[in-house]
Amino acid sequence: MLVLVINCGSSSLKYQLLDMKKEKLIAKGLVERIGIEGSVITHELAETDDKYVLKTPMTNHKEAIQHVMDALLSPDHGALKSLDEINAVGHRVVHAGEKYANSVIINDSVVDALKECIDLAPLHNPPNLDGIKACRELIPGVPMVAVFDTAFHQTMRPEAYLYAIPYEAYEDYGIRKYGFHGTSHKYMAKEAAEMLNIDVNDLKLITCHLGNGASVSAIKHGRSIDTSMGLTPLEGLVMGTRCGDLDPTIVSMLAEKMQIGHEEVVEVLNKKSGVLGISGISSDFRDLEKAMNDGNKRAELALKIFARKVRFYIGAYIAEMNGVDALVFTGGIGENDAYMRNLICSNMGNLGIKLDKHKNQARGVQAMLSTDDSPVKVMVIPANEELVIARETSELVKKSRDTSHKNS
Amino acid sequence: MLVLVINCGSSSLKYQLLDMKKEKLIAKGLVERIGIEGSVITHELAETDDKYVLKTPMTNHKEAIQHVMDALLSPDHGALKSLDEINAVGHRVVHAGEKYANSVIINDSVVDALKECIDLAPLHNPPNLDGIKACRELIPGVPMVAVFDTAFHQTMRPEAYLYAIPYEAYEDYGIRKYGFHGTSHKYMAKEAAEMLNIDVNDLKLITCHLGNGASVSAIKHGRSIDTSMGLTPLEGLVMGTRCGDLDPTIVSMLAEKMQIGHEEVVEVLNKKSGVLGISGISSDFRDLEKAMNDGNKRAELALKIFARKVRFYIGAYIAEMNGVDALVFTGGIGENDAYMRNLICSNMGNLGIKLDKHKNQARGVQAMLSTDDSPVKVMVIPANEELVIARETSELVKKSRDTSHKNS
Repeated sequence: MLVLVINCGSSSLKYQLLDMKKEKLIAKGLVERIGIEGSVITHELAETDDKYVLKTPMTNHKEAIQHVMDALLSPDHGALKSLDEINAVGHRVVHAGEKYANSVIINDSVVDALKECIDLAPLHNPPNLDGIKACRELIPGVPMVAVFDTAFHQTMRPEAYLYAIPYEAYEDYGIRKYGFHGTSHKYMAKEAAEMLNIDVNDLKLITCHLGNGASVSAIKHGRSIDTSMGLTPLEGLVMGTRCGDLDPTIVSMLAEKMQIGHEEVVEVLNKKSGVLGISGISSDFRDLEKAMNDGNKRAELALKIFARKVRFYIGAYIAEMNGVDALVFTGGIGENDAYMRNLICSNMGNLGIKLDKHKNQARGVQAMLSTDDSPVKVMVIPANEELVIARETSELVKKSRDTSHKNS
Repeated sequence: MLVLVINCGSSSLKYQLLDMKKEKLIAKGLVERIGIEGSVITHELAETDDKYVLKTPMTNHKEAIQHVMDALLSPDHGALKSLDEINAVGHRVVHAGEKYANSVIINDSVVDALKECIDLAPLHNPPNLDGIKACRELIPGVPMVAVFDTAFHQTMRPEAYLYAIPYEAYEDYGIRKYGFHGTSHKYMAKEAAEMLNIDVNDLKLITCHLGNGASVSAIKHGRSIDTSMGLTPLEGLVMGTRCGDLDPTIVSMLAEKMQIGHEEVVEVLNKKSGVLGISGISSDFRDLEKAMNDGNKRAELALKIFARKVRFYIGAYIAEMNGVDALVFTGGIGENDAYMRNLICSNMGNLGIKLDKHKNQARGVQAMLSTDDSPVKVMVIPANEELVIARETSELVKKSRDTSHKNS
């Protein structure tokens, strides 16, 4: 089964074409600056190292997806003879509110449900919906699946997802913790169980997705019971440019002191905060570690604050689950940044977490990082969001085919 | 030494007169509705059970303190023949910003410094200053000491007190974590060390002040290294009417949805949130436990959410300190609410916390609550904020006398 995975951002689009028989990547690419001057598509075939780059105006996601199709069909650098070869499309969708706890085959009522969630993710759901609409127009009849960032966390109980604000805010406006990075946390849990050769239903896991966006989840017996992101991806850990947890009073104090509206404050907290805000230098950890090594104190402080907050959540979730069997890292920082992993784990021996400094040098590969005698295992499991989306898509499409065969 | 302790709120004033030779309470009282219709002073002598109540207009804190002096001097229900018998006055002051890490003898420059902190505690510092001003006018020449809620937490390091927002917000506006309930956390640490008969410099403690306001502190070797309240007392735990930690986006979302300004949102988060907001019933845990026992699900949920958040911080601080020797409870809930203490501690055996269900029935007395074999000791140490303020006051006044004697 050939599955096309589409991940639409507000002005960008990532895609991958995978053959699910052997879970093999065939082609992938990125469209940038959609609706902005300088639109560009970068396309590559998995088997070659060549990159095909085309700069051409793309005013919306439909035009962008048309260019993706053209690239896939190109006799030169394409991978398909006909779009009919695509058996299914998997769409990443950020916010499904409380509507879906699993991936779902897209039909009109799913589209309507996602429109109702726009309020909860005004920046993310509209481009996701644009991508779905464009694909339905360009390759009608091909089954499509929506894979949600929030779905995996729908197993949280009310005591985990309710905020301590007037209950009506939950009932009337849907204000609660939803959590994000769901496909990533779910994937880590599954792979960690395989690596440990223990049934996921017998495990207590803490999964750390540390990239430019970052979140931690407590996963007990395969189910997410808590996660650090909240109503939006702003809550929780310190991130590249996002503040994470704050005294709520700060929002109104910044509005007053900076003489800006609260929407602009939210913009500052999303885009000018995090390790960038503390350091004043960069949101990129490589830049910060270089600056620290050059003696920059604020860069060092930003890294310490980041590590401290990850440790904070690890401790909190150990308490919540009354223990933990394994700690899993993924994401750009989690997979590659040995310095940061060491900073996070180096002083938690009394909690059973013992990092092996040599093994911790692993970069970008699945690996065990803890010492042999560490009661809590520490591991890296590289993220592969597109593969997870493709898996969910092919499974659901197969299941729906089987069901319709049985019914016919 | 006779010490008068004054604790001024915006429309109330608590006071105690103590003889510090034997740390004996002589008289205490409460003035309510200052500047509001129905002002009333309730005064009592420690040796009798009688309460003297006087309803009379009091338009400001100076008039209130005049009535306190009158009550103390009353031939009927008073304790003093002359105000000259008062050797020192200790004032509770909420916010000292970064200016004071210890209590301080009040002089003009201290008053100026506290005025500069009004911005950080607009509701609390002005009445505290009013109380100081009134006492300086009514009993001039009597040495006075300011004891700060924030001072004990000034030992926090930058990685604990900085938020991940643009660094200029700290430099320009003083936006950082300060922490509160400092006298209470300090007192718990000192008493716990005595109870355990271990030097506080050898202990890792987690102190939980659980009252209508609530905070947790991590105290390593006698120094506060982290605490759950932040820039203001709104951050951290769920409280009676305060929300505690929130996704910062919620502040702007509530403003938009409820069509109110951000100051009104902060009001909702301070006064209509917490367990009151979740339950819709009460901020009083006795009411909530009764409602829960009558089958009210939202009351039960509010209590679960409160307990979960305390546990969350306990775990986080265990990770931060790489272990903990003892967990200490104080405050109205911490001292008296066996149900809540059990809810907090009942599922943390793997972290070394084992509550003895029988010992946990202790109410309002200093007591050990953990089982004999519990690696982490759990204890109750009833709060006595006025005594701590009186101690700090008499110590500082004695020290300054000794210094001036030496110098003269």
